[in-house]
Amino acid sequence: MANFCKTIEKISNTTLLLDEERCRANIRLMVQRAEVAGVLFRPHFKTHQSGLVGEWFRDEGVSCISVSSLRMAAYFAEYGWDDITIAFPVNIRELDAIKKLTMRIRLNLLVESQEVVNQLDREGIESGIFIKIDTGAGRTGIPVGQHDEICRLAETINKTQTLKLQGLLAHGGNTYWAKGAEAIRKIAADAALSMDMARKRIGNELLILSWGDTPSCSMMNDNPGFDEWRPGNFVFYDVMQYHIGSCMLSDIAVALACPVVAVHHSRRQAVIHGGAVHLSKDCIRAENDFELFGYVVEFTDSGWGSPVPGAWLGSVSQEHGIVNLPEDMCLRLKPGQLIGILPVHSCLTVDAMKEMTTLNGYPVHCLK
Amino acid sequence: MANFCKTIEKISNTTLLLDEERCRANIRLMVQRAEVAGVLFRPHFKTHQSGLVGEWFRDEGVSCISVSSLRMAAYFAEYGWDDITIAFPVNIRELDAIKKLTMRIRLNLLVESQEVVNQLDREGIESGIFIKIDTGAGRTGIPVGQHDEICRLAETINKTQTLKLQGLLAHGGNTYWAKGAEAIRKIAADAALSMDMARKRIGNELLILSWGDTPSCSMMNDNPGFDEWRPGNFVFYDVMQYHIGSCMLSDIAVALACPVVAVHHSRRQAVIHGGAVHLSKDCIRAENDFELFGYVVEFTDSGWGSPVPGAWLGSVSQEHGIVNLPEDMCLRLKPGQLIGILPVHSCLTVDAMKEMTTLNGYPVHCLK
Repeated sequence: MANFCKTIEKISNTTLLLDEERCRANIRLMVQRAEVAGVLFRPHFKTHQSGLVGEWFRDEGVSCISVSSLRMAAYFAEYGWDDITIAFPVNIRELDAIKKLTMRIRLNLLVESQEVVNQLDREGIESGIFIKIDTGAGRTGIPVGQHDEICRLAETINKTQTLKLQGLLAHGGNTYWAKGAEAIRKIAADAALSMDMARKRIGNELLILSWGDTPSCSMMNDNPGFDEWRPGNFVFYDVMQYHIGSCMLSDIAVALACPVVAVHHSRRQAVIHGGAVHLSKDCIRAENDFELFGYVVEFTDSGWGSPVPGAWLGSVSQEHGIVNLPEDMCLRLKPGQLIGILPVHSCLTVDAMKEMTTLNGYPVHCLK
Repeated sequence: MANFCKTIEKISNTTLLLDEERCRANIRLMVQRAEVAGVLFRPHFKTHQSGLVGEWFRDEGVSCISVSSLRMAAYFAEYGWDDITIAFPVNIRELDAIKKLTMRIRLNLLVESQEVVNQLDREGIESGIFIKIDTGAGRTGIPVGQHDEICRLAETINKTQTLKLQGLLAHGGNTYWAKGAEAIRKIAADAALSMDMARKRIGNELLILSWGDTPSCSMMNDNPGFDEWRPGNFVFYDVMQYHIGSCMLSDIAVALACPVVAVHHSRRQAVIHGGAVHLSKDCIRAENDFELFGYVVEFTDSGWGSPVPGAWLGSVSQEHGIVNLPEDMCLRLKPGQLIGILPVHSCLTVDAMKEMTTLNGYPVHCLK
């Protein structure tokens, strides 16, 4: 694929490459998994934040999405998405803008307190409502066992004229630190069971149980009872997901192309223009202060290969990255060459870069 | 200052506030310190990346600057800065754009290898050159004791027609993990001594010894022999610099205003819209998995006060921040209120936000 050689030739500084084929395969597989599971697929678009990548979802029949801010909802509404859940608790300072958006599209909001529901009601907001439930991630939401509080909130919502209770929504953030596929599946199964109990207490079997996280949606063998899935990261995956077991390294669809600016043979390291402002400071930590900010790939005629054994991005500052290298690669690397970094956390890398380039050299713009 | 109340009222989502008075005081003090030290002051603009804040430096008589990328150099050239050092090793994939910029302004470049000097020479680049020296930070540069290599590179530069060797440049990155002011001063003093020895070996007393890092420039009592200072972070400071001892908490000139979206009384925590995409994932780590992503301030009629004792931002995900609170503050906090976060690393916070708002409500744009 000579086009990719041209793309690489033209790159003069740090550039986030997107392999459309891998990305579309990731989308297709998750659409199929959701179909088999019998759930509504409402993918989270916070990872790619891109109108174009959104179209690739549409090509697979996706018609409703999740986002993590009102700004992101407004951005995707511009791209024709008209059924959006903002999977982040309502910020009542934004009620005016929320109201405007509800007049254009079908919007679902996330609430977890009486005060916020009362405010939405006072303003006459017409939207779907999910109650945010905490099934163990401990980030936010009403703890799933607090049935009285959940039921009271459901009643308050049901009493309003314009808010429509759609369901209960939880984020499986605790799958990220679970050990192994079985533990991850158990978290999802326990969450489904306890969310179903809360739904039974509310007494409305039509309520949707909405669940989202890439590890469990990538690894569940059967559906323990959810009605809707909202994974996001799977669109690109990353080294963190590989470590968790959600994907193979060959599924990772983005790589940061970084110019080498110095090679240090004595310490078998290269310095690249690729730092925290490109990749974020997210990393995988292990004993003895080991930190992993990304794996190293080399570019081929058609894209990138498997990570180079013994090569990894070991530290980043604002603009610099320090790459540890095996001897032979260190010997042949020269300033001015490009190497690729598979990011530890693709969501934050895309958010930092705000633009990607396909292997054919086309720009892919993201929400700025 | 009623203006600030209006500013706060108008804020509907996560906003980086800039206290111009504190910022100008930080600039003024560092200009004075550089004068007393008898060094050329070439502040690093990577922290603020803002044309307007640049003007506040000009108001204090600053006329030459450092930046960390070619893009940033081009941005500040647009704002009339005509003497710029790119304090990052030359990326030879950008030679065309570098050449263009050298035709408009006086540009200094950073090199550390023969190959890169040869490339600059072949392209006929007309610029000043600093040799990047590693005085112990271990990031990049020729180790300061390798006199032969430094001298060989100096000779190569001197033989070219268009490159002018200006001096030796080091970054005091190792001051960031030094323990206490004395250790920091010793790092600077040792660096000055060893850089001077390298300069003597080159045999050109006119070469500039350029040094930069906020901790030592904020704490040195006398100048151990540098000719130029390039600190950057001091313009805003942050919680990391406070921990190092470079500043007081009241010197920190930026605070992220974050809407509270949920209050969890049982765990004495609030959830804010303020996460990794706003603050970065940089944090201060201590024993028992303690992580600090920022201190919490409350807004007053005229700005923000001292951090609230017992309150801190303890974790962040992409958009969420979880704030730990003392009981009384937790009791009175409501969804929709704004709290301020003093960032752990202001450089990365500004880079993530790309825009600030003064206490009077004026927008301050940064390089996007």
